[in-house]
Amino acid sequence: MIPESLSHGQYDTVYNFLSLVIASQLFTAVFLLISLPRILARYRQAITVAIIVCGIAAYHYFRIFDSFKAAFVTKSVGGTGTYSQAVGASFNEGYRYVDWLLTVPLLLVELVAVLALARKVQSKLLIRLVPAAGLMIALGYPGEISGDNGIRGIFGILSTIPFAYILFVLFTQLSKSLENQPAGVRGTLGRLRFLLLLSWGVYPIAYLLPLLNIAGSDAWVYKQVGYSIADIVAKAVYALIIFQVAKIKSYDDDRTFAETETSLAEREHLAERRPVAERS
Amino acid sequence: MIPESLSHGQYDTVYNFLSLVIASQLFTAVFLLISLPRILARYRQAITVAIIVCGIAAYHYFRIFDSFKAAFVTKSVGGTGTYSQAVGASFNEGYRYVDWLLTVPLLLVELVAVLALARKVQSKLLIRLVPAAGLMIALGYPGEISGDNGIRGIFGILSTIPFAYILFVLFTQLSKSLENQPAGVRGTLGRLRFLLLLSWGVYPIAYLLPLLNIAGSDAWVYKQVGYSIADIVAKAVYALIIFQVAKIKSYDDDRTFAETETSLAEREHLAERRPVAERS
Repeated sequence: MIPESLSHGQYDTVYNFLSLVIASQLFTAVFLLISLPRILARYRQAITVAIIVCGIAAYHYFRIFDSFKAAFVTKSVGGTGTYSQAVGASFNEGYRYVDWLLTVPLLLVELVAVLALARKVQSKLLIRLVPAAGLMIALGYPGEISGDNGIRGIFGILSTIPFAYILFVLFTQLSKSLENQPAGVRGTLGRLRFLLLLSWGVYPIAYLLPLLNIAGSDAWVYKQVGYSIADIVAKAVYALIIFQVAKIKSYDDDRTFAETETSLAEREHLAERRPVAERS
Repeated sequence: MIPESLSHGQYDTVYNFLSLVIASQLFTAVFLLISLPRILARYRQAITVAIIVCGIAAYHYFRIFDSFKAAFVTKSVGGTGTYSQAVGASFNEGYRYVDWLLTVPLLLVELVAVLALARKVQSKLLIRLVPAAGLMIALGYPGEISGDNGIRGIFGILSTIPFAYILFVLFTQLSKSLENQPAGVRGTLGRLRFLLLLSWGVYPIAYLLPLLNIAGSDAWVYKQVGYSIADIVAKAVYALIIFQVAKIKSYDDDRTFAETETSLAEREHLAERRPVAERS
C-alpha cells in the first residue's frame, strides 16, 4: 500500500529515480529518432517501435512523477521534515499497468521485427507472444492494487503462467529462427534474450516486496526504485541493443552502406570478423 | 546545506545562471541537430551523442530551475527584500547527480566516438572510462547531500580516485590513438583533453566550497554559479569542439564533400594546413 508518510531522503530517492526514468526514456527515443537513417530501411520498423515504446514510457513517467509530487507534501521548511499524503490527491499506481499493457507486447514486436524473418514465421511468433504479454500484465494488476497480501500473491502466481509461456517461446521457437542470422547477430540476440529475462525478472521481485514484511514505507520506496530500474533496462537499454543488432545486420546486408557509415579503422575490424572465404 | 534565506541579488544571480545553462544546452543541441548533415555519416554517432548530452542537461536544468523557484519565496513587494525557503518545497540538489550519472559517461563516449578508432581499441577505452565515470559521480553524491563537512570531504576524496584514473587513461592510452589522427585533428583533440581537465576541475572546487568557511548563503550561491559554468563548458562548449573535429575529419576523408561544404577561401586555408607531400 501507499505509505502514510515518507522521510525527506525517501521522498528525494523516489523523486530522483522517477526523473531518471523520464530522462532515460525520452533521450533514448530522441537518440534513436536521430539515428534512424543510420540503418537500412528494412530494419527501421523495429527501431520505430523501439522509439514508440520509449516515448510511451516517458509519457507515463511524466504522469507518475506529477502524481507523486501531488500525493506527498511537507509542512516543514527546507525539506528536513517528513512528507505526508496530501489531502485530495493520491498516488496512482495504476499508471504503470496502463504503460506496461501498451509497451510490453511492443517490446516483443520489436525483438521479432529486427530479425526480419519471413512473414509467416513472424506472424506465428507474434500470435503467441503478444496475447501472452497482455495477459501477463492484466493478471498482475488486481494484485497490485489490492491491499491484501493473499490476493497479491495469487495474482502474482497467475501472471507468472503467461510469463513462463513467453520465455518458453523465446527459448525454443525463436532459437530455430536465430540459426539463420549472421554470426555477430546471433550472439547479440542471445544476450538480448537474457537481458529480457533478467530485467523482466526484476518486476516480480519488486511486485512481491510488500510480501516480505519489510516496514511499509521502505518496501514501497524499494518497489518504486525497482520498477524504475527495470523499466530503464527493459525499454531503453533493450532498445539500444536492438539498434546495435539493426546496425550489424545493415552493414552485413550492404557493404556500400557499411563503407559510408564507418571509418576505415572500423571497417578493417568488420572485415576481420567475416569468414576468410567471404572477404572481398 | 541549502541556506535559510537569500538576498534579492543572490536569488537573481542563481536564477539567471540556471536560465543561462538552459539556453546554452538547448540551443547547442538544436544547432548540432541542424548541422548533422554537414559532417560525414561515420562521425554522426559522436555528434548524436553530443546532442543527447546537451538535451539531457537542458531537461535537468528545467527541473533544477523549477525546484529553485518553488523552494524560495519572498513576502516583500517589488523584490527588494530577501527570499526565504518556502513551506512544502525544498531545493533538490540530487538532480545534478542524476544528470551527471547519465551525461558524464556519455561525454567520454562522445570523445572516443569522434576518433572513429578500430572497434577493438574503442571498446578497450570505453570499458575503462565509462564505469570509472559512473563511479566518480556515485561517490560524490553521499557527500553532496550530507550536511556534515567531514563526510563531504571523505566522499570528495573517494570520488577523486576514479577521476584520476580517467585522466590517466586519457593522457596515456588515448595518446597512442591520437598519433594516427590527421595533424589538424591531433591539435584540436589535445586542446579538448585540456578543456575536459579544466572544466571537470571546476566541479571539485564548487563541491568543496562549503568547506572553506565562506558564510553559508554565499558559498551556496558560488557553488550554483560554479556548477552552472562548469556544465556549460563541459557539455556545450565541449560538444562544439567535438563538432569541429568531426568537420575537419570529414573534409580530410572526402575532398568532394569538403568542396560542397566550404568556400574557395576556406579550402585554400585547409590545403595550406596539410603537409606539402599530401597536397593535391
